[in-house]
Amino acid sequence: MTMHEARSWTVSAEHAVTYRLREVEGVFDRGNDSVARAAALGAGRTLCVIDATVDRIIRDEVRDYFAAYGASMELLVLDRGEDRKNLDAVVEVLTAMDRVDPPRRARPVVAIGGGVLLDIVGLACSLYRRGTPYVRIPTSLLAIVDAAVGVKTAVNFGGHKSRIGTYYPALVSLIDPALLATLPPRHIRNGMAEIVKIAVVRNRALFELIEANAERCGTSAVFTTDTGRAVIAAAIDTMVRELEPNLWEAELERAADFGHSFSPGIEMSVLPELLHGEAVAIDIALSVVVSSARGRLMPRDRDRVLSVLHRLGLPLCLDTLTVDLLADALAATTSHRDGLQRLPLPTAIGACEFVNDVTHGEITAALASLRAGHETTTRVAQ
Amino acid sequence: MTMHEARSWTVSAEHAVTYRLREVEGVFDRGNDSVARAAALGAGRTLCVIDATVDRIIRDEVRDYFAAYGASMELLVLDRGEDRKNLDAVVEVLTAMDRVDPPRRARPVVAIGGGVLLDIVGLACSLYRRGTPYVRIPTSLLAIVDAAVGVKTAVNFGGHKSRIGTYYPALVSLIDPALLATLPPRHIRNGMAEIVKIAVVRNRALFELIEANAERCGTSAVFTTDTGRAVIAAAIDTMVRELEPNLWEAELERAADFGHSFSPGIEMSVLPELLHGEAVAIDIALSVVVSSARGRLMPRDRDRVLSVLHRLGLPLCLDTLTVDLLADALAATTSHRDGLQRLPLPTAIGACEFVNDVTHGEITAALASLRAGHETTTRVAQ
Repeated sequence: MTMHEARSWTVSAEHAVTYRLREVEGVFDRGNDSVARAAALGAGRTLCVIDATVDRIIRDEVRDYFAAYGASMELLVLDRGEDRKNLDAVVEVLTAMDRVDPPRRARPVVAIGGGVLLDIVGLACSLYRRGTPYVRIPTSLLAIVDAAVGVKTAVNFGGHKSRIGTYYPALVSLIDPALLATLPPRHIRNGMAEIVKIAVVRNRALFELIEANAERCGTSAVFTTDTGRAVIAAAIDTMVRELEPNLWEAELERAADFGHSFSPGIEMSVLPELLHGEAVAIDIALSVVVSSARGRLMPRDRDRVLSVLHRLGLPLCLDTLTVDLLADALAATTSHRDGLQRLPLPTAIGACEFVNDVTHGEITAALASLRAGHETTTRVAQ
Repeated sequence: MTMHEARSWTVSAEHAVTYRLREVEGVFDRGNDSVARAAALGAGRTLCVIDATVDRIIRDEVRDYFAAYGASMELLVLDRGEDRKNLDAVVEVLTAMDRVDPPRRARPVVAIGGGVLLDIVGLACSLYRRGTPYVRIPTSLLAIVDAAVGVKTAVNFGGHKSRIGTYYPALVSLIDPALLATLPPRHIRNGMAEIVKIAVVRNRALFELIEANAERCGTSAVFTTDTGRAVIAAAIDTMVRELEPNLWEAELERAADFGHSFSPGIEMSVLPELLHGEAVAIDIALSVVVSSARGRLMPRDRDRVLSVLHRLGLPLCLDTLTVDLLADALAATTSHRDGLQRLPLPTAIGACEFVNDVTHGEITAALASLRAGHETTTRVAQ
């Protein structure tokens, strides 16, 4: 051993991750022990973080459920909203965790709410002791088919959508479509946008199921029927198959990013008026118009997508959208995709390709076309 | 498909992680392209986060180095100190990252400093875009053998040491022992405590090398010699072997936690006066006394450990320590270890066992013994 012999070490390891999603009927029925088992309810305090709107509707039900299983509940009610999805909200959850002081792995946190709440609580749980288990109970359609399926946690930062976050799975997501009964129609449509997203690029049969039932799919009532349950199940199936091989996003060409290239910039520019799914719908519309203009998607398929979005009651455009805003949004997304656009563009219903060369001119044309075409689409739909 | 058929999905995936540690002579010599290659220096801005004390010593050197490789440097100088290791510091780094806006994976952040700085920057990098690459250049002995070896990032929260963090590896840690030349002796001793820690439970030969050179090992000069280099290399070797199979702490019985059961509580109770390694030394002393009193460690080995700590100039006790403080610290650690003490206690030099049943009485006796024995140890050492 001499002073000038430079040593080096290589450390290699694999981290195995497993988590579950389960459909549950009557998730807060006392007779249903799904939550109790997943969250190890029992002696000792359990932190339950719940969305403020959901809390107003089911607080007693949740409280009775915890009591029935002998658990003392520390309740943290979070005001929801994309404009509250920031580090302060994470600190609020961390402070509650510190107050409850759960042991490292034995007492999961229970998160009940929409995507924003699940993203916030997931981030806090991933940070506290570098990982405290948690159970997700999504209460919005968007959360059921999106936030509750993957491992991404996030809050906004510096005006950028979901700029800060981690990859951290919940132990389990318990999915009870009955919770959607009280969801306002606009929030049902919001979730449908994410379902249309994955259908357009990965599941033609799901798209056609929605197409055959578009008006019904914009209402909460459909989720008490076989059709609605089938839509949810197919959307989750497709998302799971898409996410599982690329859970940590080693591959930056992601079909699940369809509808999420222009939309972060659109959404952040009009917070809190525009919902996430509404921004995604506009992005989907722009993308199919661009792809069709390139001759990569048949006009008929483009129009089918636009028509379904419209029939669902989703926006295809905004008066305030400008080419500069869209170009800036795409540039920010390109940086997020490590310097290439990696833009998913549909090539048929259920298929997509990734492109890196969409120009300012194409965005200009697509926006103009959507502005002009909106009435056409409306006619198609009615 | 019926409404009452409950579906479920199981998602399983493995995340492969690889990172390197490299010994580098003259890490900021222009002729040495290690940093330039690791951080992909070149056209575009690179964020460099540097400890304030280190910055006063090597700012020009670092600036010249970046310039030599054509990189524009955005410099963020962080005041170091365990009492500044909080979420505000993470936000400071995140804000700088947002200003520089590096592409997702192509432009690593460069972190230059001690363990506190590396922990803060590592946490910020793990959060920004859910993972931005970074390069670690540790400038303290403690950081070289501890923070720069593993994947744990952290800040303090709610008065608890490192309560918030992530598991996130740097691309590479570049280790240049020449950077230790300007480190004050107290900070050399601080790092030696972590080296003694891993030696006592896992590497008898390393312990004996330190034992044979204890006084020299308390000074920075030793790290320009083969002895000092061998101590660092053996400490890193042992830590890598210990950490690699348990990188995400699936197993909570960790030999690397030796010296870290009472010390978080001790350290946080006397911030910023006490250094991390000093608290670790006191924990080591308590642990060997407890193990010896149980008849699990020979008194001679206990005294060898106490003697080495003392000869290194490390504290074995504090006047302000109380049994209640130590018992509370152990209770907090027990919660962090999911309800069991999992306390590593040496059974010989280079070996340990894990126990779950250390009592208040044993802590009382150990503290009294250290108080009374301190003079004995001093006599042994001189």
